[in-house]
Amino acid sequence: MKAVLIVCDGLGDRPTRALRGLTPLQAARADTLNRIASEGECGIMDVIAPGQPPGSDTAHLALFGYDPYACYPGRGAFEALGVGVELQPGDVAFRCNFGTVNDDGIVIDRRAGRISSEEARQLAEALKDIRIESVSGVQVIFHHSSEHRGVLVLRGEGLSRCVSDVDTHKAGVKPAVPQPLDDSPEAERTAKALREFLEKAGKILAEHPLNLERVKRGLLPANILLPRGAGTLPKIEPITRIWGIRAAAIAGGGLYKGVARAVGFDLIQVPGANGTVNTNLRGKVEAAIRALDSYDLVFLHVKATDNVSHDKNPVKKVEVIEWISRELTPLVEKVTSEEYYLAITGDHTTPSEVGEHRGDPVPIAIMGPDVRRDDVKRFDEISCARGSLCRIRGTDLMRILMNYLGRVPLFGE
Amino acid sequence: MKAVLIVCDGLGDRPTRALRGLTPLQAARADTLNRIASEGECGIMDVIAPGQPPGSDTAHLALFGYDPYACYPGRGAFEALGVGVELQPGDVAFRCNFGTVNDDGIVIDRRAGRISSEEARQLAEALKDIRIESVSGVQVIFHHSSEHRGVLVLRGEGLSRCVSDVDTHKAGVKPAVPQPLDDSPEAERTAKALREFLEKAGKILAEHPLNLERVKRGLLPANILLPRGAGTLPKIEPITRIWGIRAAAIAGGGLYKGVARAVGFDLIQVPGANGTVNTNLRGKVEAAIRALDSYDLVFLHVKATDNVSHDKNPVKKVEVIEWISRELTPLVEKVTSEEYYLAITGDHTTPSEVGEHRGDPVPIAIMGPDVRRDDVKRFDEISCARGSLCRIRGTDLMRILMNYLGRVPLFGE
Repeated sequence: MKAVLIVCDGLGDRPTRALRGLTPLQAARADTLNRIASEGECGIMDVIAPGQPPGSDTAHLALFGYDPYACYPGRGAFEALGVGVELQPGDVAFRCNFGTVNDDGIVIDRRAGRISSEEARQLAEALKDIRIESVSGVQVIFHHSSEHRGVLVLRGEGLSRCVSDVDTHKAGVKPAVPQPLDDSPEAERTAKALREFLEKAGKILAEHPLNLERVKRGLLPANILLPRGAGTLPKIEPITRIWGIRAAAIAGGGLYKGVARAVGFDLIQVPGANGTVNTNLRGKVEAAIRALDSYDLVFLHVKATDNVSHDKNPVKKVEVIEWISRELTPLVEKVTSEEYYLAITGDHTTPSEVGEHRGDPVPIAIMGPDVRRDDVKRFDEISCARGSLCRIRGTDLMRILMNYLGRVPLFGE
Repeated sequence: MKAVLIVCDGLGDRPTRALRGLTPLQAARADTLNRIASEGECGIMDVIAPGQPPGSDTAHLALFGYDPYACYPGRGAFEALGVGVELQPGDVAFRCNFGTVNDDGIVIDRRAGRISSEEARQLAEALKDIRIESVSGVQVIFHHSSEHRGVLVLRGEGLSRCVSDVDTHKAGVKPAVPQPLDDSPEAERTAKALREFLEKAGKILAEHPLNLERVKRGLLPANILLPRGAGTLPKIEPITRIWGIRAAAIAGGGLYKGVARAVGFDLIQVPGANGTVNTNLRGKVEAAIRALDSYDLVFLHVKATDNVSHDKNPVKKVEVIEWISRELTPLVEKVTSEEYYLAITGDHTTPSEVGEHRGDPVPIAIMGPDVRRDDVKRFDEISCARGSLCRIRGTDLMRILMNYLGRVPLFGE
């Protein structure tokens, strides 16, 4: 017995003026999503807790069955894993922006004029030889990811993720000086190493020919790095070991790949899967269908619903939902013909009038041979609340799926 | 104000092919069960947690209001209490099978050719004089229960339930040598005492005239004991003291009597109540009606639904449900006329196509003067999910009932 878990990022929404008081899911003609609801058991789900807006990282930890309050290790590690860094226990990883500071050290752009991937990759190359001298035994790994984004990893004995962010998320102020967030010598060492790295990186970037050339062309130079979100590998048992399954993940966005890798999924790379509304969704769905031949659990992540929500575009969200619904059809056919299980849900609610994550529950539907089919006919936030799953927590979902797969050991006799 | 809690073991089920996609509860004509649902408030319940298959022992601890993750003391103690052993704090109790080994010490039958109760009782008698010499201050109590089953209790200072099972649940292999499961001297002492007991018991059984006679008649001798499920009394406050109530339990199966005794219920013995489909259910219901005159809470356990589920017989499960529904009628009449409360539910789902416990929620209905009557008209897994109780946890049930009885003290002011 096998299962597919489809997560449409930021899928949950609220009654929306532009849709005459309907949610995007209510407004959409989404035949395949509604088919899953009709043939399945439906409910609503608090991914973290009622009213609690989840981050995408904590949300996915919960959906994979891990209590994020107990094991959330900061975002940096997921970013690093997502861009392919072979992270080791003890490594401290940071998300980084290339940014621009003026002569007074004030950040004037957190994205260095939205510098291209091509140029940022060249700059990243120049940072690879930085050696840390003020703290012994610390190695630097820097990896460009996309556009103005990169990942910094500090590797060595005795480091800690308890260091403050450099990126203040604001322009017009100086970047923050990284500080230890607890009294441990590890946090002190890490903050010190990070400060040295930033100083050396700043010098290299300021003098880099590519930046000098940008200034000549009237573009903002990428002359500073802004690390944030220090993180380490979570101390968890892999999902494959907990349940005795083979598990594969298909995602475009680096973060989702990173969380999936961190908990033990194999990554299936799909060309053109890029975490945007222009992703190769057809290719991802085809990959998911193929993956079911060799994996017990296939996780399929679609980011586009969240992108249009952050853009505050409910009408576009309706279109994206209808597109996802159409593209999922062959996967639903496959699952039906094989008598597998399929669950579809969101990782959080991103109301398209708000443009930010909110803590409203998300709809969920599970189809498969043994589910308690209810009379819910539509996959939306309000219809699903009347279904036979009632209201569940995100951390319960994986156990519910594994119960259908017969993978949960008895507790007691 | 008083309440009855009726637990039909393994009552929850799944859509079942033999019943054209209905669950046994959906397929049954169960007028009295449906009356409870119609007049009551309904819901579904995760006895332990969503997706978690409960054992019968942990499930009943939860239903009685105790967190099994915090206080589950192993099954052995419940078995011992269930067969009437006056267990003391510190005693370590084991479930035991009489089994058969060949000359090479290989288990060839875990039930000694399904030896009769009569014969097993005689063999048990011969084990009573065993003295433990390798460990000081350990006393042996052995008690036959039914057929090939017995209970072994080791009594003395400094014992532990952290010892491994002897019974491997398999034939064709040697029984396991009991080992300490932690580094404590108590576990070491217990494992040592158990090994000595097994050696002495094996000799007595091998030479016992009854076994020699069985061999002559071509029957398997009961020449070994296979203990498992070491357990102690749970460290809990009795249910009677927590809520200030008088509580009585009526059950056929030894385990259920044992859990009920362990948490402080008085046991009401009913002749012919035997935990099978041939139980004296009418007598149990009559006993429950009488018990309401002198107790505040009456727990009535019916095992038959689980037996037919483990036999993978959904059609028979429908019959059993209809029979239970009919037999409960006078109890429901009594509760109605007295304006008492009555809750009916299962301790876990045993899908009759699977034949094992699963973690799907169970239906629950509570009737009584102050419940929030909803529009659910049928007592089944899917109808109840739309009821006014929504989805609750097993450990919440007792507090919900005691709230109706006005027995839950205010928290705060």
